[in-house]
Amino acid sequence: MKLRPLHDRVIVKRMENETKTASGIVIPDNAAEKPDQGVVIAVGQGRKNDKGELVAMAVKVDDKVLFGKYSGQTVKVDGEELLVMKEEDLFAVIEK
Amino acid sequence: MKLRPLHDRVIVKRMENETKTASGIVIPDNAAEKPDQGVVIAVGQGRKNDKGELVAMAVKVDDKVLFGKYSGQTVKVDGEELLVMKEEDLFAVIEK
Amino acid sequence: MKLRPLHDRVIVKRMENETKTASGIVIPDNAAEKPDQGVVIAVGQGRKNDKGELVAMAVKVDDKVLFGKYSGQTVKVDGEELLVMKEEDLFAVIEK
Amino acid sequence: MKLRPLHDRVIVKRMENETKTASGIVIPDNAAEKPDQGVVIAVGQGRKNDKGELVAMAVKVDDKVLFGKYSGQTVKVDGEELLVMKEEDLFAVIEK
Amino acid sequence: MKLRPLHDRVIVKRMENETKTASGIVIPDNAAEKPDQGVVIAVGQGRKNDKGELVAMAVKVDDKVLFGKYSGQTVKVDGEELLVMKEEDLFAVIEK
Amino acid sequence: MKLRPLHDRVIVKRMENETKTASGIVIPDNAAEKPDQGVVIAVGQGRKNDKGELVAMAVKVDDKVLFGKYSGQTVKVDGEELLVMKEEDLFAVIEK
Amino acid sequence: MKLRPLHDRVIVKRMENETKTASGIVIPDNAAEKPDQGVVIAVGQGRKNDKGELVAMAVKVDDKVLFGKYSGQTVKVDGEELLVMKEEDLFAVIEK
Repeated sequence: MKLRPLHDRVIVKRMENETKTASGIVIPDNAAEKPDQGVVIAVGQGRKNDKGELVAMAVKVDDKVLFGKYSGQTVKVDGEELLVMKEEDLFAVIEK
Repeated sequence: MKLRPLHDRVIVKRMENETKTASGIVIPDNAAEKPDQGVVIAVGQGRKNDKGELVAMAVKVDDKVLFGKYSGQTVKVDGEELLVMKEEDLFAVIEK
Repeated sequence: MKLRPLHDRVIVKRMENETKTASGIVIPDNAAEKPDQGVVIAVGQGRKNDKGELVAMAVKVDDKVLFGKYSGQTVKVDGEELLVMKEEDLFAVIEK
Repeated sequence: MKLRPLHDRVIVKRMENETKTASGIVIPDNAAEKPDQGVVIAVGQGRKNDKGELVAMAVKVDDKVLFGKYSGQTVKVDGEELLVMKEEDLFAVIEK
Repeated sequence: MKLRPLHDRVIVKRMENETKTASGIVIPDNAAEKPDQGVVIAVGQGRKNDKGELVAMAVKVDDKVLFGKYSGQTVKVDGEELLVMKEEDLFAVIEK
Repeated sequence: MKLRPLHDRVIVKRMENETKTASGIVIPDNAAEKPDQGVVIAVGQGRKNDKGELVAMAVKVDDKVLFGKYSGQTVKVDGEELLVMKEEDLFAVIEK
Repeated sequence: MKLRPLHDRVIVKRMENETKTASGIVIPDNAAEKPDQGVVIAVGQGRKNDKGELVAMAVKVDDKVLFGKYSGQTVKVDGEELLVMKEEDLFAVIEK
């Protein structure tokens, strides 16, 4: 299943938390703080400005991004949980 | 009955949930989480921008779309429940 | 009494609900869900855009329209209850 | 005392309710629903648009107007209660 | 002490209420309803529009004005209570 | 320590209240009403308008200004409490 | 790990509070008031204005900045807590 985001929307897969402690104890998912980093898996074409010109997107597929704890809306596609945001909700690209 | 949405409105039929479990137990409708996918059944002509030009719609009839759990307003037409949204409330087109 | 709506306002008469069940039992009005359809009985000339040009209305008198359950404000004219909305609050025209 | 409303403001005198029933029983004022009709008693010159041009008012003194139950702010001038609104808060002109 | 309001701000001295009844009984100040009229004691030069042009003020010092019961913010200058508003918060000029 | 405010921000030092009564009784600080006057100690260069032009500031360092009781945000710099506001939050310049 | 903020976003490292009193008593972190100063560690390229032109940023890396107690959103990168803000949320640059 392939997603084509509309306008300036970005689809992000949130990074998994290490939910096992060093000693091997599993922390249940809702007890662990959700990470505020993820990987871009799809980007829209960009929004149009007041002149009707397309504003190019500042991120691309596979970019590792930083966003707010409560940014985006969760959707479930093929059983996988994804985050949908507008590009302006992204804070930064993480460069290794 | 045919609907002609105004401006940048889109009418969506939400996809049905499988409300029967593998073992055949029927889950009552309000216990099942509503899916955030649907099929576009009617689109408006688009909104006009500040210059008075029509902005073409990015989706068309029969597109399978992804939207937020709480997006849109429910209306009942001929006994059928439909969702009315603005195009900007749609997240992505699902391409098979 | 004739109403001349101002700007982009539309006056709608909500369709009556069948408030009698098949077996003839009368459901009191406030127990029945209000229908989200109605007929346009008056339209304004339209609003002016940023350039001072009149934007023509997309609906006309006698159009059957679809709107949100909570759209518009109720007014009483000659004892009759009417709904006043802006054109942008209308969802779609229902074509038979 | 004469009032000169500023910009796109309109001063309206709300129509009196018949607060006596047919059998002559007087209904105290706060028990009666306030009517959503009134007569325009003063209009401003109009607001200026983004180009600095005056936008002419769509109502004039003595027009009978329809407005929302909760529109406008009440002021007391010479002991008389009046409603002050912006023109855009008026719904329609009532033509006889 | 002289005040020079900035931009489209107006400084108004609220009219005093007659807080003594005809029979000479003094009504304490907080029991009397505050009047929604006052006299302009200082006006700014006006705000600048989108083109950077100064928009002239529609009121001048000594104008008697009508405003909303809850309009403006109260400041104390030299022990005297004054109201500061934006010009757009004024409803009308009262001409005798 | 020198502060260079950004854009249309202004840094104001609130005037001290006389917190000793005539008879020499000291009123604790939180019992005294905070004065709505202060002195400008730093101003930004101004904001840019829609055309990208710098809009000059209407106040300068050492101006005595009037503002709302709840205007601005408090910051502590070198142990001294200062108020940071946007120029538009200032009401008036007090000229002696 | 290197961060490239998007648009007009700024990443700030909040200054540490002296959480030990003069006599050496350690004040637990949540009892100490968070300082409203920090150091810029990364800046975006700037936002685009209505004409599509890039508006240069007014701060640069290593600037010491003043901001509101509740400004910005906290993110954790490599175990380090950082603040992400828009440039307009910064109050002033602190020049020594």
